[in-house]
Amino acid sequence: MNPSINLGIIGAGRIGRLHAANLCQRVPGAKVVMVTDALAASAESCAAQLGIPAHGTDYQAVLNRPDIQAVVICSPTDTHTGIIQAAAAAGKHVFCEKPIDVDLGRIDLAIAAVRKAGIVFQVGFNRRFDPNFQRVRTAVASGEIGTPHQVHIISRDPSPPPIEYVRVSGGIFLDMTIHDFDMAQFLVDSPIVEVFATGDVRVDPAIGEAGDLDTVVVLLKYANGATAVIENCRQAAYGYDQRVEVFGSAGAIRIDNNYPNNAILSTREWVRRDLPHHFFLTRYTESYIAEMQAFLEAIRHGRRSPVSGEDGRIPVVIAMAARRSLQTNRPVRLSEIG
Amino acid sequence: MNPSINLGIIGAGRIGRLHAANLCQRVPGAKVVMVTDALAASAESCAAQLGIPAHGTDYQAVLNRPDIQAVVICSPTDTHTGIIQAAAAAGKHVFCEKPIDVDLGRIDLAIAAVRKAGIVFQVGFNRRFDPNFQRVRTAVASGEIGTPHQVHIISRDPSPPPIEYVRVSGGIFLDMTIHDFDMAQFLVDSPIVEVFATGDVRVDPAIGEAGDLDTVVVLLKYANGATAVIENCRQAAYGYDQRVEVFGSAGAIRIDNNYPNNAILSTREWVRRDLPHHFFLTRYTESYIAEMQAFLEAIRHGRRSPVSGEDGRIPVVIAMAARRSLQTNRPVRLSEIG
Amino acid sequence: MNPSINLGIIGAGRIGRLHAANLCQRVPGAKVVMVTDALAASAESCAAQLGIPAHGTDYQAVLNRPDIQAVVICSPTDTHTGIIQAAAAAGKHVFCEKPIDVDLGRIDLAIAAVRKAGIVFQVGFNRRFDPNFQRVRTAVASGEIGTPHQVHIISRDPSPPPIEYVRVSGGIFLDMTIHDFDMAQFLVDSPIVEVFATGDVRVDPAIGEAGDLDTVVVLLKYANGATAVIENCRQAAYGYDQRVEVFGSAGAIRIDNNYPNNAILSTREWVRRDLPHHFFLTRYTESYIAEMQAFLEAIRHGRRSPVSGEDGRIPVVIAMAARRSLQTNRPVRLSEIG
Amino acid sequence: MNPSINLGIIGAGRIGRLHAANLCQRVPGAKVVMVTDALAASAESCAAQLGIPAHGTDYQAVLNRPDIQAVVICSPTDTHTGIIQAAAAAGKHVFCEKPIDVDLGRIDLAIAAVRKAGIVFQVGFNRRFDPNFQRVRTAVASGEIGTPHQVHIISRDPSPPPIEYVRVSGGIFLDMTIHDFDMAQFLVDSPIVEVFATGDVRVDPAIGEAGDLDTVVVLLKYANGATAVIENCRQAAYGYDQRVEVFGSAGAIRIDNNYPNNAILSTREWVRRDLPHHFFLTRYTESYIAEMQAFLEAIRHGRRSPVSGEDGRIPVVIAMAARRSLQTNRPVRLSEIG
Repeated sequence: MNPSINLGIIGAGRIGRLHAANLCQRVPGAKVVMVTDALAASAESCAAQLGIPAHGTDYQAVLNRPDIQAVVICSPTDTHTGIIQAAAAAGKHVFCEKPIDVDLGRIDLAIAAVRKAGIVFQVGFNRRFDPNFQRVRTAVASGEIGTPHQVHIISRDPSPPPIEYVRVSGGIFLDMTIHDFDMAQFLVDSPIVEVFATGDVRVDPAIGEAGDLDTVVVLLKYANGATAVIENCRQAAYGYDQRVEVFGSAGAIRIDNNYPNNAILSTREWVRRDLPHHFFLTRYTESYIAEMQAFLEAIRHGRRSPVSGEDGRIPVVIAMAARRSLQTNRPVRLSEIG
Repeated sequence: MNPSINLGIIGAGRIGRLHAANLCQRVPGAKVVMVTDALAASAESCAAQLGIPAHGTDYQAVLNRPDIQAVVICSPTDTHTGIIQAAAAAGKHVFCEKPIDVDLGRIDLAIAAVRKAGIVFQVGFNRRFDPNFQRVRTAVASGEIGTPHQVHIISRDPSPPPIEYVRVSGGIFLDMTIHDFDMAQFLVDSPIVEVFATGDVRVDPAIGEAGDLDTVVVLLKYANGATAVIENCRQAAYGYDQRVEVFGSAGAIRIDNNYPNNAILSTREWVRRDLPHHFFLTRYTESYIAEMQAFLEAIRHGRRSPVSGEDGRIPVVIAMAARRSLQTNRPVRLSEIG
Repeated sequence: MNPSINLGIIGAGRIGRLHAANLCQRVPGAKVVMVTDALAASAESCAAQLGIPAHGTDYQAVLNRPDIQAVVICSPTDTHTGIIQAAAAAGKHVFCEKPIDVDLGRIDLAIAAVRKAGIVFQVGFNRRFDPNFQRVRTAVASGEIGTPHQVHIISRDPSPPPIEYVRVSGGIFLDMTIHDFDMAQFLVDSPIVEVFATGDVRVDPAIGEAGDLDTVVVLLKYANGATAVIENCRQAAYGYDQRVEVFGSAGAIRIDNNYPNNAILSTREWVRRDLPHHFFLTRYTESYIAEMQAFLEAIRHGRRSPVSGEDGRIPVVIAMAARRSLQTNRPVRLSEIG
Repeated sequence: MNPSINLGIIGAGRIGRLHAANLCQRVPGAKVVMVTDALAASAESCAAQLGIPAHGTDYQAVLNRPDIQAVVICSPTDTHTGIIQAAAAAGKHVFCEKPIDVDLGRIDLAIAAVRKAGIVFQVGFNRRFDPNFQRVRTAVASGEIGTPHQVHIISRDPSPPPIEYVRVSGGIFLDMTIHDFDMAQFLVDSPIVEVFATGDVRVDPAIGEAGDLDTVVVLLKYANGATAVIENCRQAAYGYDQRVEVFGSAGAIRIDNNYPNNAILSTREWVRRDLPHHFFLTRYTESYIAEMQAFLEAIRHGRRSPVSGEDGRIPVVIAMAARRSLQTNRPVRLSEIG
């Protein structure tokens, strides 16, 4: 059996609890020894529920413990880079939820701190660890479909987040499409260089009043001339819609949604099946576990994580370009952003 | 049994012979009494093969026959509007292959002539008559998927046409994407108002040398704020790729390719099925028959055809906007074109 | 163009009209010159509807015409062998609907007459000409799935026939399962040697009162040790259910039902598609045309038809064995039947 | 958090280790405190690998520990009933792998002991906990498909077990089909009353020399007149093949195999996907976890387990009837067995 790795969770909101539960119950070799949250009650209830021995409100307490080797940062986005730098200084390996930050300067400081400390650093793009998306990447990387020409990413949520969340989310591109920007870059081995974005408020006028969009289409160009199209919507009646298709010179590969079962029911009126998974936590159960396993493996073997700080920076740049494209109704080069 | 309608075929190339064969063998109530082609041998062999009683090189011979009620124009595009006007003057109903023309002025003259003569006029957008595309339209029109938000059209050929054809084709937008522009307009009941096009030469450098592209992505905006994305490629390794998906406020509908059989074969290595239909004639066999039946029905009942001259004009305008968008790398409003 | 073959239709009921319409409108090279039916009105209306020049009540009138080369027998089953023998004597090629007869002695006389006359003789097992079933046969015959071990045939009707028909049908095995017995023999190249049948009245008690069953399962053994299972029901809520799966040493092949379209609709409640074809005429449109083309080709090239009299005898023997198995609740060897 | 339940594992072979690993790593609230195996090395390595604090060779050591509430019996079949009785006497809840035994007298003694002790007893029919099979059961139980008429179960292994295992397995019906007998009974709420079995040696002659079959078809009749057909083979080239279809008066429901991913790859030659899961441990990962959760829940809430001793007895009776049917080539009533 692998020696256990002691971890601290920083931030005990929805995603923090998810990672904590996985690390406690489904990732052998992980030991969560402390959880902190700015809200004392939140840290406490998380610790109680999962049997985590220590909790607190100050993440510095985690960094101060010499027995903790790694931290999982799930606090609000604007606190990420500060914690990353402190954790790097304390020599802790870092798993950080996406996005690293919404400011490129701060992202660069964090990446520099990570490099200097020589720690393992991984960004939470969990979809990369899903067997379906991995199969697509393998097909592209191995040449099964030849040279990729056209990528098509569909990504729709079952329902929009609360309007208070929308207001501080940084906008749909940084909050939602960022996963798809990462996917577009993950699937094709050529830098994305240009973005054209268009969008509308079609689901809920309140989202528009909050200054955001809920339905967008983004067209990306890779340096090698390939294109990617991303279709997003904050609300799909039938549930969580996450599909990808890559078309290349020798063929194409596509993946469908995941379903709670594969039963086909034939009735007097329709041939039908149950809806796909409705919620991202159910849909991506296994990929959240797999990304933590990968993080622990990287620590154990002293190797680079599969989603580096540099990987985490790219989608932020694309999101910024998408925002500018939308505002100006013209294609925007990534080189304009920085 | 319905009384027969006498027809003349003008142009005995590939598509002309297809229509002639369907009208002779698979469309009850149609009687092809003459075929003409600028190439005498072509008209003659078509007549011989199908048992058409008369043939010639001058389409005027068809128009001069009082027993002929309708003509099917399959001659080269640049001859279309001239023949349409002559046929209208002769009081013949007209079925014309797409595109009507590549010049909007000439298209408008043809449409005016059609209106003045009060004849039935139908443009050859056969895909509208395919059961799959019709099911999508029904779903959209009936509200089964609510308000449409995002349309996605995939349209790829099994292999590029001969390079001599590419040179005179008018470019990929007018030759190939035009079907998809029509489909985008057919599926959603709101005018298309803006186009952003991007493209590349990825299949064959000779196509680029001929001044054309072989791989394009076009983003369309409807007046109602919905979007459509079209992905085209002149070559798909796996055959003829024709799919559509429409996403709306209450759901989504998508169609797959058509296959010669639906057998699933499980072997030591893969679970697999035979390739989809490779060729448009095989794929759209039934829709070519159905469009002719619709044309004859319109004549019999004196009603407007399901694909009018105005319908045929729209995709030409969009194709022109797409070309301009590509040249300028910016979105182009259809109102800029005319 | 192939020279036309002149045909006479004997029997203008539902299936007779179907063949007549196909031969008139969709099979190039066929010319229906006469139709007869014991019911004068039936022959007359069929002739009028399809423009067949002659009609009558006596099939002998067809056999007497020297310009007629072939006949299509669609009269009641108990008249088949008499007409076959008369047609053979008159030197007419014969297409006969299934079953040839329900008496093996009469079948053997008819086969002997056919052989003596040297005519082309084909039995109406149209499913053999369906692209899906053909793909399965190809997979088995070519070794794609290795040695076949287990065949599974599902065959269910959308609704039971009228009870008056049930009374004279000869029972479900001779009327309905006979298609599946033929399919079982068609797919695997080894004689069927034993039958075990079980069944029940589950759809309509009136069927039981008429001395028949409506829901049966039949287990067949081939000489080579492989097995086939047939599941029949007179009523499937979702329509016409016709599927096959063959499992062999190197893999398996299965086919699904045919659908009027392949659209997938995702809604708030289900992911669903329209029902499969409901009616055998719609489901097997193309196979009815293909079997006639095959019949004409056999005549033209003077070769054996793809469904010989011997082929047509086998399913009758199996049906008899199935009936005896059901009555005795034990497996019955075909050698017990004759 | 639920209070932990202390468990002992009896038998550390493949399936014992599987349950041990699940209980240690993936079933919150379970605590494996001891493992025994007749082979000391096996118990020891299992304990070491999973961090189980105690191990031994005598299962009595488990039963003697007052802190252990439940045992998981994974020892050879012929030891099951002895251990069950001892465990019941010791007041331990019992999870026992299938089959309980191959002797009905011993099974009845074990069931009596369980009843007397009032313990929770569960048999290891894990497939009942699979989401696909559960969806089928729900459809049947809820009336979604009306009255069930015909059940079809396909169950094929990727490759036969070692020949030494075959020799002591009790025969294919008791070793392999037993899962399907349980499934047939699980899906339809009416007792199975008659069995007709047929089979052959088609995969490996050595299996025949060992007195067993490798390819069987079994036809079951329910008391309510419905039927079930089971198709088994010890070797499917494409992997683990586990499918079910139930046809009823109002519709039908069917489930497909499970796949490691749902990617569809279109190439020059085929449209294809990766093979289904090859191995039962991978295919049924989640159902093994779910059955243990159900066992723990039954203990916690003092309720009857979802797979009782009586449930475990039925498939053994059916297997015996199937064996007799095969030997006598006639249908066998379950009432003949006992």
